Amino acid sequence: MDDTERTILKATYRVLCEHGYADLTMQQIATESDLSKATIHYHYGSKERLFEAFLTYLYERYSDRLDEVSGPTARDRLDELLTIQLADTEDEPGIDFRTAMLEVRAQAPYDERIQETLSAFDATLVSALRETIAAGIEAGEFDDHVDPALAADLLTTVIKGAHTRHVAVRHPLERSHEAARTYVETYLIGETPSEVTT
Amino acid sequence: MDDTERTILKATYRVLCEHGYADLTMQQIATESDLSKATIHYHYGSKERLFEAFLTYLYERYSDRLDEVSGPTARDRLDELLTIQLADTEDEPGIDFRTAMLEVRAQAPYDERIQETLSAFDATLVSALRETIAAGIEAGEFDDHVDPALAADLLTTVIKGAHTRHVAVRHPLERSHEAARTYVETYLIGETPSEVTT
Repeated sequence: MDDTERTILKATYRVLCEHGYADLTMQQIATESDLSKATIHYHYGSKERLFEAFLTYLYERYSDRLDEVSGPTARDRLDELLTIQLADTEDEPGIDFRTAMLEVRAQAPYDERIQETLSAFDATLVSALRETIAAGIEAGEFDDHVDPALAADLLTTVIKGAHTRHVAVRHPLERSHEAARTYVETYLIGETPSEVTT
Repeated sequence: MDDTERTILKATYRVLCEHGYADLTMQQIATESDLSKATIHYHYGSKERLFEAFLTYLYERYSDRLDEVSGPTARDRLDELLTIQLADTEDEPGIDFRTAMLEVRAQAPYDERIQETLSAFDATLVSALRETIAAGIEAGEFDDHVDPALAADLLTTVIKGAHTRHVAVRHPLERSHEAARTYVETYLIGETPSEVTT
């Protein structure tokens, strides 16, 4: 990726946050990036190809971010994975970007390439969670009867549901984060609800 | 609601399943219902008012369906609530309708009335789950240290996440259903993962 392409993809991010996915146009991206439409067409050919490149760029950043997660214990790493996904920070990705991504998810059944890239995001998250949970079982931090694949799957579903409810009904992310932490404490660590609440 | 209105709303459902929300038009609904566009306009005035009436109609059916849940124990009722939401049946609502509803969720931030109705769906589900869990604690079926509000919130998030992943990445609903059942067995009933897996 050259500098011009990086400029185009960053402008695409800002346009998506401001206008959503349905109204995304090459003209808006040109205006936002201070480049001509011709330059954008030269690099990406069509809005569809630009959007595919944009999703791939996001996927690479996402995957790198999950790989960077470190911490002395599996519990620390699992907490960090949940925080990356569920912390309600002022900075990116904010609710505007999550709204655009929910529009993209709803488009996936109509667009195989979008669905493939979204599946890569999903699989990467499931596998980061599963490996962390498996490492925690191995280290004796988590209950050894937990099925790491099933627990990773449930946490991924919780994360996606938290994002959907946050966008659709303004359900606070912090509340979903709390519910996910309680799940980790009781199910994975095996504290009883009474130990957690007292 | 008169018979004509019922016919229009049922046709709206079928058009949404076939074409999605973005492409919904009064003309398609007229064709599907064998009524004239003038008749539809007479009853609903605009596409926006028709769609609001449609969401309200769905909400009433949804709310009635949750109210009908019965069973000798809270555990039975909770299982039935999860089955209503997560069973992957051949009949309605199928994935086409869930795709349209995900499009609608992504529109909610741009449309206050849609967001209000979706919030009513969300609140109704949370409260059905919360009341069932509270009744189970009262009856001694569920661990009395469980916080019914937090557990209901987590299950609602799991259900919404299951629907989102089903549409966006074709994640099997059955897998999410299994993860939700495991959560109920371990966290609410207090079986350890070893008791569940053996």
